Amino acid sequence: MSSRVGIIGVGMTKFGELWDRGYRDLIVDAGAMAIKDAGIEGDQIEGIYVGSMSPGLFAEQEHVSALVADYSGLRGIPASRVEAACASGGVALREAYLAIKSGEMDIVVAGGVEKMTDIPTGSAAVALMGAGDQELEAFKGVTFPSLYALMARRHMVEYGTTIEQISQVAVKSHNNASLNENAQYPFRVTLEQVMNSTLIADPLRILHCSGITDGAATVILASEEKAEELNNDPVWIRSSSLATDSIALHDRKSFSRMDAAILAARKAYKGAGIKPEDIDFAELHDCFSIAEILAIEAMGFCEFGEGGKITEDGETELNGRIPINTSGGLKGRGHPVGATGIAQAIEAVLQIRGDAGKRQVKGARTGLIQNVGGSGATCVVHILSGEKE
Amino acid sequence: MSSRVGIIGVGMTKFGELWDRGYRDLIVDAGAMAIKDAGIEGDQIEGIYVGSMSPGLFAEQEHVSALVADYSGLRGIPASRVEAACASGGVALREAYLAIKSGEMDIVVAGGVEKMTDIPTGSAAVALMGAGDQELEAFKGVTFPSLYALMARRHMVEYGTTIEQISQVAVKSHNNASLNENAQYPFRVTLEQVMNSTLIADPLRILHCSGITDGAATVILASEEKAEELNNDPVWIRSSSLATDSIALHDRKSFSRMDAAILAARKAYKGAGIKPEDIDFAELHDCFSIAEILAIEAMGFCEFGEGGKITEDGETELNGRIPINTSGGLKGRGHPVGATGIAQAIEAVLQIRGDAGKRQVKGARTGLIQNVGGSGATCVVHILSGEKE
Repeated sequence: MSSRVGIIGVGMTKFGELWDRGYRDLIVDAGAMAIKDAGIEGDQIEGIYVGSMSPGLFAEQEHVSALVADYSGLRGIPASRVEAACASGGVALREAYLAIKSGEMDIVVAGGVEKMTDIPTGSAAVALMGAGDQELEAFKGVTFPSLYALMARRHMVEYGTTIEQISQVAVKSHNNASLNENAQYPFRVTLEQVMNSTLIADPLRILHCSGITDGAATVILASEEKAEELNNDPVWIRSSSLATDSIALHDRKSFSRMDAAILAARKAYKGAGIKPEDIDFAELHDCFSIAEILAIEAMGFCEFGEGGKITEDGETELNGRIPINTSGGLKGRGHPVGATGIAQAIEAVLQIRGDAGKRQVKGARTGLIQNVGGSGATCVVHILSGEKE
Repeated sequence: MSSRVGIIGVGMTKFGELWDRGYRDLIVDAGAMAIKDAGIEGDQIEGIYVGSMSPGLFAEQEHVSALVADYSGLRGIPASRVEAACASGGVALREAYLAIKSGEMDIVVAGGVEKMTDIPTGSAAVALMGAGDQELEAFKGVTFPSLYALMARRHMVEYGTTIEQISQVAVKSHNNASLNENAQYPFRVTLEQVMNSTLIADPLRILHCSGITDGAATVILASEEKAEELNNDPVWIRSSSLATDSIALHDRKSFSRMDAAILAARKAYKGAGIKPEDIDFAELHDCFSIAEILAIEAMGFCEFGEGGKITEDGETELNGRIPINTSGGLKGRGHPVGATGIAQAIEAVLQIRGDAGKRQVKGARTGLIQNVGGSGATCVVHILSGEKE
């Protein structure tokens, strides 16, 4: 067993409508960048985990584990695809971490990829609804914006959260995205623009919703021994946790708290031996702006019900008390579903290395990343740090 | 790190056209049987791995990890879906094994499930072709029977393998299936019936091909410490290996040898510290009858080119030198793709426990199971034994 696991290389494509690149091109591009960043050769890689939500419905292609190994020039090595809807990337990171902890491998790639824009938007909506309960939600006409709209409405009723506060999440995300050259939407939006944008599922408007995105992201993990042998300066995965909840929203205890996120956060903090106040920044799963508020609260960055208020007060901004989604988040950076969890890890690595450029959080040493599948049925949390312990 | 991992419980549904049971029913049924068999309570389970190839294309349902945890009454615990086409079950077994080896969990479920008969056969063929290369094979009209037909023809040319020998694989598998109450096709067929059945892709006929099947299978794994604490008598996973090759058949070095299977076998034997002659029986991936011949050779049970001959000579029969597919194999037992790798593990456990009834191999103590994805792009091999070392 390797006692510790570190990230020694990162690479990602630009996120967006990438009509000149196919599924396999995207993930190979990201992988090659990560290998270069790690300063290793491809033949040092001992295993691959690919997070991808629905290549079957997006491209009639399954078995992407072997496809990725093949097109990366790594035929032969163990490759597995993992899937947990929009948390597929986070689960890939976790399984790669566990594979190294098992002692069976020393250098493992965790990649995430989705190619969503090659099919009509209606078909993409069908694919994405596969993250919910097909029989009890999708078949009845429920869509993801409507599920998150229910959560938003309930949060507003229970806590007095305002649509201005929810909208401010998007304003902040776009501010940060404007500093990220890989972002799908690298521009600012005003509160008025968000609040007057097209209504999708009341109270959520289009500028509260992440887009349909192509993209891939890859990180390379190594055991402590191997990282030291390579003379690499890793960002350490201090803990990894995964929790689940009912697949259908209507079966939850609460619409205004995300229990899987709360449970995963508790386990992650315990595993790392730290508290929310030790976290310098976080990448949270803002597939819809209300989701960031739920996540801020679940991660313990404020009391339940206060997520909207601390956003409005600027505490989650780049120079605030707890910067959230410095990358631009799912809203601003884009949300190629399987790639998102890995892109979150990359942002954390860049911040901890001090390589985040104009969006650098001063003194960032420890960050939390949180990736959600569906309406909260899966939640993955990792704590990353420049400090080994 | 847990030094050893054992299987402490098994459960599977009947395989077949199960029109009265849905996807979630099947896997919950199999899981409940495994929990009962292990003599544990559900709340002792710390993690779930679900192998499923294409619930997206078969039922527009992704995110089956959370779905399975939810409907099994295990909301909260970590659940991941893994996929590697028809090797998804084998990969689920492997990832559960690695999770225990990592030291993060002590009791983990590995399940496999597919519900293939709810959509038209043509749509199922599209889904299954997702196991190959969508852009370079499927899009050109290639189907899986045609890929394996190419392999069969090449084996016949290179080694003089006859269609009678290939057909004898199916005769043997059906003989064994007739002794298995969970088999989809529990009846015998004659050599003449196989050789005169409908031609699908020359030289392969319909009785050389596995069917379209619904079914689920579950095993429960435990660390050595936990198995002993539970006073359970496990079947030990002596080694687990996974290897890959090109996703498309045309990129392989050879059509008559399956390199990923050869590599996975070599690693599995090395991991377990044993040789092919130490294996008492094997479950091999006979999606098409020629695949069993390729697998017999890749696993080292005979020289390359001799697989047809040893089949014809009866060496792979129930009372032969190396009994293959005592369960009936994919051909006789059925092939609900994601469930197959787990069903193979269950057959091995039953044989090693001495619980295989009329198809019991005398003195079976050590078995090998081999699960293939696509035309050989993924191969998973596990060696299971009643002996701890």
